[in-house]
Order: sequence, then C-alpha cells, then structure tokens
Amino acid sequence: MKLSVILGHPNPGSYNHAITACVLNTLAEMGHETFYHDLYAENFDPVLPHEEIADEDLLPEPVKRHINELKQAEGIVIVHPNWWGTPPAILKGWIDRVLRKGFAYRFDANGPVPYFTDKIVQIFSTSNTPRDVEINVNGDPLEGFWKTVVFGLCGSKSFERRNFESIILSTHEERLAWLDEVRKTISRRFISELP
Amino acid sequence: MKLSVILGHPNPGSYNHAITACVLNTLAEMGHETFYHDLYAENFDPVLPHEEIADEDLLPEPVKRHINELKQAEGIVIVHPNWWGTPPAILKGWIDRVLRKGFAYRFDANGPVPYFTDKIVQIFSTSNTPRDVEINVNGDPLEGFWKTVVFGLCGSKSFERRNFESIILSTHEERLAWLDEVRKTISRRFISELP
Repeated sequence: MKLSVILGHPNPGSYNHAITACVLNTLAEMGHETFYHDLYAENFDPVLPHEEIADEDLLPEPVKRHINELKQAEGIVIVHPNWWGTPPAILKGWIDRVLRKGFAYRFDANGPVPYFTDKIVQIFSTSNTPRDVEINVNGDPLEGFWKTVVFGLCGSKSFERRNFESIILSTHEERLAWLDEVRKTISRRFISELP
Repeated sequence: MKLSVILGHPNPGSYNHAITACVLNTLAEMGHETFYHDLYAENFDPVLPHEEIADEDLLPEPVKRHINELKQAEGIVIVHPNWWGTPPAILKGWIDRVLRKGFAYRFDANGPVPYFTDKIVQIFSTSNTPRDVEINVNGDPLEGFWKTVVFGLCGSKSFERRNFESIILSTHEERLAWLDEVRKTISRRFISELP
C-alpha cells in the first residue's frame, strides 16, 4: 500500500511532529510505502498564482510531485494544528494548489464528480480550545472543512478525523496515550486487502 | 475615519478587484483615509514561522506595518473569493501572522478578551457554489469563519458579510448592480460619528 503523509506545523519539536513520526513508524512496520512531506521543512509555497489555475503546464515541480504521488496513493494522512478553525496557511495553500479541478474532482452537468473515491483519508488535528467551545460555539469548523468541503468534493473511500485537545494542558501520560491511539488508528485503517 | 482594506485575489482583472476599487472610491469620496493592501500584488508571505509566534521582535516589516495600520483603523474591509469554504492561503496567512495574540485578542482567567471592539468590519466574498448548497450542504463555512471564529475572538463594533454568487454565471447587469450594493453598503456602514 502506498500513502501520502502531509504535515503542516512550524515547530520541529511540536506534538504534531510526534504524531507524524508515530504515523510514519507504524506505516513502515506494516510494510507500506509512504510519500512524506513536512511542508514547513520543505518551504512549500502555498500561494496559488492566477495563471496556474487554468494551465497545468505552469505547475512547479513540487506541486507536480504531490499530484503524482497522490495519483499512486491509496491512503492520505494529514496532520496539523487548528489555527482559526482552519489549517495553517501553508497547508491551506497545499489544498489550493494540489487538489486541482481535473485531478481531485471535476464538474459535469449534474454537479461535482469526486476522483478520490479509492482513497482512505485520516486527519489528525490538535487544538487548545476546549472541546465544548469548539463544537457548540465555533461549530467544529475543521470537521466541516475536511469532511464536507474538501473530501466531500474530492470524495474518499472512507474518512475519519481525530482531534486531540487541549495540547497546552495535556500531561505527558495523556500525550503518550494519544500516540498509542494514533498507532492503533493507523493499524486499523490502512490494512492491505487480501489479493 | 481611517480604514484597512485587504484584498486576497490572484487575478488583477477579477471581479474581486472591481469590488475593491468600488470600496476604495467610495471611501475616498466620503473623505476617509485608507490603508490598502492587495496581498498578491505585494507578495505578502503568509507562512507564519514558529519563532515569530512568541517573539514580537522577529516580526518582518510588512507584518509590523499591517499591525500599526490596524491599530489606527476604525474600520476593516476584506475582499476575497471562497476557496474551499475559506479564504485563499495568502489571506489565511495574513490572519495567522497579523491577528496576533496580544494585539487582536488576549486570554485571561475567564477566557478570551477581544481587542477589536472599536472596529466596524465588512467582508465581501465571492463564490460560484449555488447559495443553497453552500448553506445547506457546506453549512456556510465562510460565515462561521469570519463572524464566529475570527471576529468572534478579536471582537468588532459591528460585523457584516455579503457574499456575491454565482460569479461565473452572473450577467454584466448583475455585476453592476452588485457594485452599486457595495457602494451603498460602504456609505451606510462607515459614516463618521459627529463630534
């Protein structure tokens, strides 16, 4: 099984990086091949230029590479913190540039046609906002963003998201238990089907 | 009256630029002073580095300038297209970098304290998704993003948002009528109070 793993967090010492290391280790133990991108470490440019929207020939090498990898991927794992109910700009721009019309979805006379219906999607997000405020006041915007807007349009074989909070108030033991949950989630969701 | 006007659209020939020109002309006719930024034209860097989060001294000149202008502004007008139920990455990163804790809001023992309670906020967004799909399927994510998440935390004296759709299907007459609505909205909302 091949998977794309995408991380959008500015601090190499962050808990997001610990989650991602756990994802990568678990996938390696399972014998899967991963295309891994730490968007900050790679200086991914998230600003979609106007000319690129209609002209595939203008795509820069990093965007082409992401598209080529996603074409092969049976699974997508995305890890990021909740900044203003949305991903950091570097990851928002990865969506703007990589999940292009004609690649991730298209439109026909009946509306949108998803192209990612063969992919298993797992989102891990982190936040400091109390869960009840995030759901009852803010309306859990990250859930709507990923599940309904992004992978509602692109489609998925199956979609799950897990948010860990509050990072800032968490104990060492809680963080270890969450990593164990990450490991179990990856093991459960990305089992290769028997031939 | 001083206002910050922020535009996040990659195409200088876009309807977003027409809306913004109408905003700027109307404000000038009213005798207001504007701080105007076309984020694409200025190559605004939307990627918030880790070190900058805690250390104000590391802020680059453009971010400092935005903060300094917003300190003086009694009004904020933001114009952008709906990309994935959120602003383009360049504008998302403007929020990540400029609306800093300690400037736009802070936290005390009782929760968040907004600092923008003196500012009149106007958002103009554009989209191609049919209005009923955007509201009933997607849950109108831009409304929640701006009203509840961003200006819910930062506060405002008053908040309004107007979305124009569908841009792609609109006639020349509709677009002219919308610009007239932009002009009337700006005239109505940014009246200087009598001394």
